[in-house]
Amino acid sequence: MSGGINRYKNDLRDLFFVLFEQFRFAEVAGKGQYEAWGPDEARAVLNETYRFAREVLGPLNAVGDKEGCKVVDGQVKTPSGFKDAWKQLHESGFKTLALSAEHGGQGAPLMLYALTEEILSGANTAFNMYPGLAYGAAELVAECGTPEQVKKYGEPVFTGKWGGTMCLTEPQAGSDVGANKTSARKNADGTYSIKGTKIFISGGDHDLAENIIHLVLARIEGAQPGTKGLSLFIVPKHRVGAGGSVGASNDVSVGGIEHKMGINGSATAVLNFGENDACVGELVGGVEHQGIQQMFRMMNGARIAVGIQGLGVLATAYQNALEYAKDRKQGAHYTKWKDPSSPRVAILEHPDVRRMLLEMKAYTEGIRALVVKLTSHEDRAKLHRGVDDEQAAYHHGQVELLTPLVKAFSSEEAFRLCAQAIQVFGGAGYLKDHPVEQYSRDAKIFSIYEGTTHIQAMDLVGRKLGQAGGVHFQQFMSDVAAFVEGNREHATFGADVQRLAAAQEAVMASAMTLLGWSQGGKMHLIPLAANRFLKMMSELAVGWLLLEAGVLAEKSAQGLSASDPERAFYEGKRYSAQWFSRNVLPEVEHGARVLALEDPSASEIPDAAFATV
Amino acid sequence: MSGGINRYKNDLRDLFFVLFEQFRFAEVAGKGQYEAWGPDEARAVLNETYRFAREVLGPLNAVGDKEGCKVVDGQVKTPSGFKDAWKQLHESGFKTLALSAEHGGQGAPLMLYALTEEILSGANTAFNMYPGLAYGAAELVAECGTPEQVKKYGEPVFTGKWGGTMCLTEPQAGSDVGANKTSARKNADGTYSIKGTKIFISGGDHDLAENIIHLVLARIEGAQPGTKGLSLFIVPKHRVGAGGSVGASNDVSVGGIEHKMGINGSATAVLNFGENDACVGELVGGVEHQGIQQMFRMMNGARIAVGIQGLGVLATAYQNALEYAKDRKQGAHYTKWKDPSSPRVAILEHPDVRRMLLEMKAYTEGIRALVVKLTSHEDRAKLHRGVDDEQAAYHHGQVELLTPLVKAFSSEEAFRLCAQAIQVFGGAGYLKDHPVEQYSRDAKIFSIYEGTTHIQAMDLVGRKLGQAGGVHFQQFMSDVAAFVEGNREHATFGADVQRLAAAQEAVMASAMTLLGWSQGGKMHLIPLAANRFLKMMSELAVGWLLLEAGVLAEKSAQGLSASDPERAFYEGKRYSAQWFSRNVLPEVEHGARVLALEDPSASEIPDAAFATV
Repeated sequence: MSGGINRYKNDLRDLFFVLFEQFRFAEVAGKGQYEAWGPDEARAVLNETYRFAREVLGPLNAVGDKEGCKVVDGQVKTPSGFKDAWKQLHESGFKTLALSAEHGGQGAPLMLYALTEEILSGANTAFNMYPGLAYGAAELVAECGTPEQVKKYGEPVFTGKWGGTMCLTEPQAGSDVGANKTSARKNADGTYSIKGTKIFISGGDHDLAENIIHLVLARIEGAQPGTKGLSLFIVPKHRVGAGGSVGASNDVSVGGIEHKMGINGSATAVLNFGENDACVGELVGGVEHQGIQQMFRMMNGARIAVGIQGLGVLATAYQNALEYAKDRKQGAHYTKWKDPSSPRVAILEHPDVRRMLLEMKAYTEGIRALVVKLTSHEDRAKLHRGVDDEQAAYHHGQVELLTPLVKAFSSEEAFRLCAQAIQVFGGAGYLKDHPVEQYSRDAKIFSIYEGTTHIQAMDLVGRKLGQAGGVHFQQFMSDVAAFVEGNREHATFGADVQRLAAAQEAVMASAMTLLGWSQGGKMHLIPLAANRFLKMMSELAVGWLLLEAGVLAEKSAQGLSASDPERAFYEGKRYSAQWFSRNVLPEVEHGARVLALEDPSASEIPDAAFATV
Repeated sequence: MSGGINRYKNDLRDLFFVLFEQFRFAEVAGKGQYEAWGPDEARAVLNETYRFAREVLGPLNAVGDKEGCKVVDGQVKTPSGFKDAWKQLHESGFKTLALSAEHGGQGAPLMLYALTEEILSGANTAFNMYPGLAYGAAELVAECGTPEQVKKYGEPVFTGKWGGTMCLTEPQAGSDVGANKTSARKNADGTYSIKGTKIFISGGDHDLAENIIHLVLARIEGAQPGTKGLSLFIVPKHRVGAGGSVGASNDVSVGGIEHKMGINGSATAVLNFGENDACVGELVGGVEHQGIQQMFRMMNGARIAVGIQGLGVLATAYQNALEYAKDRKQGAHYTKWKDPSSPRVAILEHPDVRRMLLEMKAYTEGIRALVVKLTSHEDRAKLHRGVDDEQAAYHHGQVELLTPLVKAFSSEEAFRLCAQAIQVFGGAGYLKDHPVEQYSRDAKIFSIYEGTTHIQAMDLVGRKLGQAGGVHFQQFMSDVAAFVEGNREHATFGADVQRLAAAQEAVMASAMTLLGWSQGGKMHLIPLAANRFLKMMSELAVGWLLLEAGVLAEKSAQGLSASDPERAFYEGKRYSAQWFSRNVLPEVEHGARVLALEDPSASEIPDAAFATV
């Protein structure tokens, strides 16, 4: 192995709280397709994932950052230890946890899988991208492919025998997928010849597995322009023979890998398909021009996965900063700072350090709750499908609505708070001796890939708010309202819940403002306000879930003795909720006031006024 | 040379505006000690500094980041090209621009020097730390040293013959300077034997000059504990013989250099003094126990310099993002995004890109105005000293009050907005092919060194607000009020100025709240709210200066033809001011509301409630 040391750290107690107490795993487990699962199994899986993360992935995180990837003889070489970790990960079955038994998986609820992914991504973001994207590609093949494709291409990826990628971006088209130029020409045998260049392909090449299944968006010759003319192809790195044997090169070459700010252990490749006119692809599912719809199945999962990446890094940044603040002694207590003979205290005693840590705690717990809420809706939607369609539609609607929030809010806040973790460490945090500067560099990509924050914001305001006639949004708001009504007079949280109510009114008012703009000839204001609205709605959601957790925790703490560590944990939930309610929820009202000012400056400023150079 | 390419970019037009139009350089130049200076000279200096920055320092910025520093045979080796750049910088006289003629300088006003430093730091933050800290050390010697010390140690540093550092931090004492343990024992000849270890010493060793003058805080044996027992010593790397000859080693050794997130071209050294009991220092000015006061003369300048570093990096991040947004074509115009045949447009046409850029523009211009305001107060204080003591005191008071704002606000916003520059670039911004990811990594240190943001915030609320019986703060507020009164009904900016007035009331109310806490047994709330208050007051100051600039620009634009580029520039000032007034100034009121909630959560949460691990 590489000799790296583990820096990954998390507090499983909160994962158990969110899973079992707040989102009632027991209501989902043991039922329908989740019959084999119960709380004991879930707890064992989380404990085992955490052990693996600390023993195997965590020690490789700084190693991957330092070594990075290299191209040797046209093939990407991953950092020391990655290949062995890939092997162990798949042998232990971590990646097939939520996969259905039909494809060889353990069929666990997604809400559990989300938390194992928090742990794996948090321990080593760059490493976990390889199996994460491979799994997403295999899932897409499993959902959209022909039975032969599932068996031939999907299953070897699920088992970790092969890797997988998604290939969307091209040099001239980043967020603008519809401008893709990669072409596909039909061959006599029904396969397609693929030709074009894709960039920013995460895990686009690597040495972890003997083959890689690329899912490539391309335009069949003569198809219409834009996203509607795109089709999706299975393009293996090496051709696959009868019985799954790995054959000759499929004319997919590595044009180079990028040198990045972070996630250096993850190879970001330029891939050239068909430079020698010998690249062959199969149409996914055998259907033409369905590429963008097919890819979006993977994209939605990938967006949730990015939100989970943010959570993963944020949680370990928090725990590392907390640990340092407990260990590091410096300065006198602030009430005695003028007395040089007063004892040095742990920096955890300094008010501003506590403030920074409590903020990190509240966001970590709140974003975790939001992630588990989203995935628990997915689980519940699956359980209700075909049994109670109305309930299934409700749960599915919440998944749709919350996806852009999880992706964008977690990304943005994780980066901001990893930088805050550096601040807790002080100068030491700026050094590579501690993990937080890497967390910060790794986290910056989250707000960009799989759809930038603004793309998420436009998905929310332009699509999700009005989806199903606005029903998904209304149901979300009435869930919040039900909590408010039930807890408005709560002895501990009453005033905090009333701030939640005010935040909810502000979100509603702003949603109406946006609607008014779209109907009243002020469309140009919508993209200017969309990011702010997404943040407001995310803060409302997180504030709600933290208060809900606080109310539950207070009940659970009753009767526990003062020295019981469980009591301290439950008390901690109260502080997270109250801090967030007092320091963040008022921002939602503020956001609504700013939005109502209808500032068109950014749209009206002439290009020439930005600078004279 | 190194073959690096220049990425540094700035818009000198705005530097000229702030210097000549907003802060009326002509009122300072040509008078008293600034007699030799006029606008033509200032303009020539800025043009020449910009040329030097683009031709010499800019191309070395990525080189320094990539190569970093190395320790070879116990000596630090700086990146390729740094030594030659150091030579050119000093030969051209950039560093002695504001130095008095008495010490061989050109005696320029500080407001001009601040802008040359913006350019030099912006072009190459890491490089510019070597001459910047050396200059600060020499200035301290010039102000506090004996005439012999000034000649022997100060002047060779001013000319760039030698380097210089400030040595405060020790392993057990970061922000807590009073816990320093480095010792000084008086020798028979009046010199002192220095013994101890200093860490985080920027430019602590390098190969740019034949000697380095360290200013070392140490405790003379038997002195009292805490900061009051500290004295300041001149400790050269090599002993200095008669006539300034550089002699044998002074027993100062490099214990190592740090591996950092950014500013990799700047060596951050561990220095061991007196490991062989052969390290000799001279007491600065020959006075004992004045170390902390002496060091603070340098510290105030260093804090302003960090604020200028933030401005420097922010300005070039903005210009780089703007240039990319003009060049990069992707996606259709948002009004036609559903039509795949509509032409691709520059991403500058996308509303959210414009919003991000206008935000960067407004902060760049506003922070620049705040920096020049502070330094122009310093110039005016010098001109009035001994002539009009009341005016001198007023100007000096504003310098004191604004220093923590410039240091902390510029640091925090520069980092945040460099990350936003990455977002403007999208995935490309995450790559080392473009400069913005380096800017972001370099900028993270600004909020930490020379006193963290919280130390600045406590300096503001604990010291500066009440300084001189609160007069400095009152004068600042009445300057804002005078602007409000004069422009409340302004045809273009009236509503924006009224928002400024509301922000001012909010700052005043919060200042009263803080005072009430200190008098009413709620001291524990003050450090929890201090950072927020600093941000509010900074936003008020920047909002004011942007609106002032907007009002001035509108007058200047009168009569200019629509095609005149000057007209576009002046219009740009209006958008900066209005965007900031509508999107940021309301945050000040919001901040006051949050502060009034008196949330004690972070102080009350038990340590055990932060985590169960």
